[in-house]
Amino acid sequence: MADQLLIGLDFGGMSIKGGAVSASDGKILARGLRPFAPDVAAAEIFTRAAELVLELESAAGGSAERIGVGCAGLFDRPTGTVLASANMPNLVGESLSKGVGEGLGGREVLVENDANVAAFGEQWLGAGLAEDSMALLTLGTGVGGGIVLGNELFVGPGGNAGEIGHTVIFPKPSGSYYDGPYHEELACPCGSYGCLERLVSASAAKRRARTAGLNDDLPVLAQAAREADGPERRLMHEIGRDLGSGLSTLVTLFDISFFVIGGGFGAALDVLRPGAEELLEEQRYGTGASRIVPATLGSDAGWIGAARLSLRTD
Amino acid sequence: MADQLLIGLDFGGMSIKGGAVSASDGKILARGLRPFAPDVAAAEIFTRAAELVLELESAAGGSAERIGVGCAGLFDRPTGTVLASANMPNLVGESLSKGVGEGLGGREVLVENDANVAAFGEQWLGAGLAEDSMALLTLGTGVGGGIVLGNELFVGPGGNAGEIGHTVIFPKPSGSYYDGPYHEELACPCGSYGCLERLVSASAAKRRARTAGLNDDLPVLAQAAREADGPERRLMHEIGRDLGSGLSTLVTLFDISFFVIGGGFGAALDVLRPGAEELLEEQRYGTGASRIVPATLGSDAGWIGAARLSLRTD
Repeated sequence: MADQLLIGLDFGGMSIKGGAVSASDGKILARGLRPFAPDVAAAEIFTRAAELVLELESAAGGSAERIGVGCAGLFDRPTGTVLASANMPNLVGESLSKGVGEGLGGREVLVENDANVAAFGEQWLGAGLAEDSMALLTLGTGVGGGIVLGNELFVGPGGNAGEIGHTVIFPKPSGSYYDGPYHEELACPCGSYGCLERLVSASAAKRRARTAGLNDDLPVLAQAAREADGPERRLMHEIGRDLGSGLSTLVTLFDISFFVIGGGFGAALDVLRPGAEELLEEQRYGTGASRIVPATLGSDAGWIGAARLSLRTD
Repeated sequence: MADQLLIGLDFGGMSIKGGAVSASDGKILARGLRPFAPDVAAAEIFTRAAELVLELESAAGGSAERIGVGCAGLFDRPTGTVLASANMPNLVGESLSKGVGEGLGGREVLVENDANVAAFGEQWLGAGLAEDSMALLTLGTGVGGGIVLGNELFVGPGGNAGEIGHTVIFPKPSGSYYDGPYHEELACPCGSYGCLERLVSASAAKRRARTAGLNDDLPVLAQAAREADGPERRLMHEIGRDLGSGLSTLVTLFDISFFVIGGGFGAALDVLRPGAEELLEEQRYGTGASRIVPATLGSDAGWIGAARLSLRTD
């Protein structure tokens, strides 16, 4: 069989990123971008997506049998319909498979959650290259999460598993064991309380810095933590321990020991890691030591993982 | 193909339970038991296991191509060797596959964790009969857990996933969000702190009853909770909420909504359920409502799930 050309698209709130990659060796053959205004109609997004695919095929000198698409949100798997998406409200109710496929002569389009495809990309060509199983956590406005087990994306029976950012790591005050104060800032928009993303996202870190009377510019905060054993380092250690709590649940429930950290606040991993490792050592279940490494594909992870979807045979 | 006869064994600390079941309709054809002294040698256990298999085959009027075995502990999957087992120390370092198989003319023997086979049994012929995906939690001395996804047992890439009882639902005091007291009784023998089993096992419930100045006989406690809105009901509600915390993590990470509760303290599910459902409602992630039902196979669940293992084709 000739080498297969794979094309992936990553739908974001303001643009579509995409690229072409060779199935056999993971060589990146082309990259592209289509920005759009926040209020653009779904039909227009689909047109731009199809144009981008054709542009990528032209640049890569080949054509893709199927197209993979990553998009923030929850999906109805069989039809590729967006059930909910905070970032892309105009796409709710639309079938991405149908919309993108129509502009491409009815080609098959596979759709997956954006954090999941990013994990799938990092495991294929990024930080998880040498690992069969791993979890990706992206520390941004929220905490995105994706899990790969035995080189397969884990989405669970209903397709919506692996919502790592909404694992509760801090219980709501109640009962005889915890009668401490209720922290308004730990209430999560998802309806829950004490979700991992309320404690370790970039937004949470900025909030925690302000509460501690520190500079909430995260690169500045991280640099201060690197340079001196002061309040910035103590805060990063504490946030690192909370990150470790989230990872420890993944160790216990998935038997995963390799973690990749991405997103803007992931750049502070060097100062978060000591706290995370300390907690994982305390809560370690099983025998293997965990490793926590930075993501390496940056904003390419999503489209690369989406492209890999189109290689799936199931 | 003629109907297949399946045989499963469940190795416990004081006996081997076993049975024969028809693959096509799940009809139970025979049951058997071989007790042994706690200090019995591995070779003797293997001999009794093989005898029990032959007895079951004779009673069921057929023979099984492969044998499934459930046993407490961690295993090396390819060889079926027991790596660790608190209940059956004499089996550590022994290959159950080899030991049981030798007395049966070298037949193939499949080995799995006891809580996992119990979940696999309940999903096949018990409380989960109508569900493709579910988790079983057994509330006994500890909390055993097993997860079935899409009619397959979920054991993760290394085979040791799904340790639900050791999910941390209560963080160790540290950091600015939780500065409450350290509770000695929440320290878990696994090395961690605040594990689900430190809060909702039968042992934990008895301890919590004593702390609250209540009768620690669990059936008596449960009955009092059923009859009056007093301190017993409040304690059961609180333990139920803690159980709900464990379930809520499974909802978020596995997209499971069907839970089966077994073990001795599982008999109190009717008084634990209100608290568990209350918490799941508060922490609900996603859209589906959860259902929590009692296990129905009792002590047959383990051998039935073990028998089902032998039907697997992978």
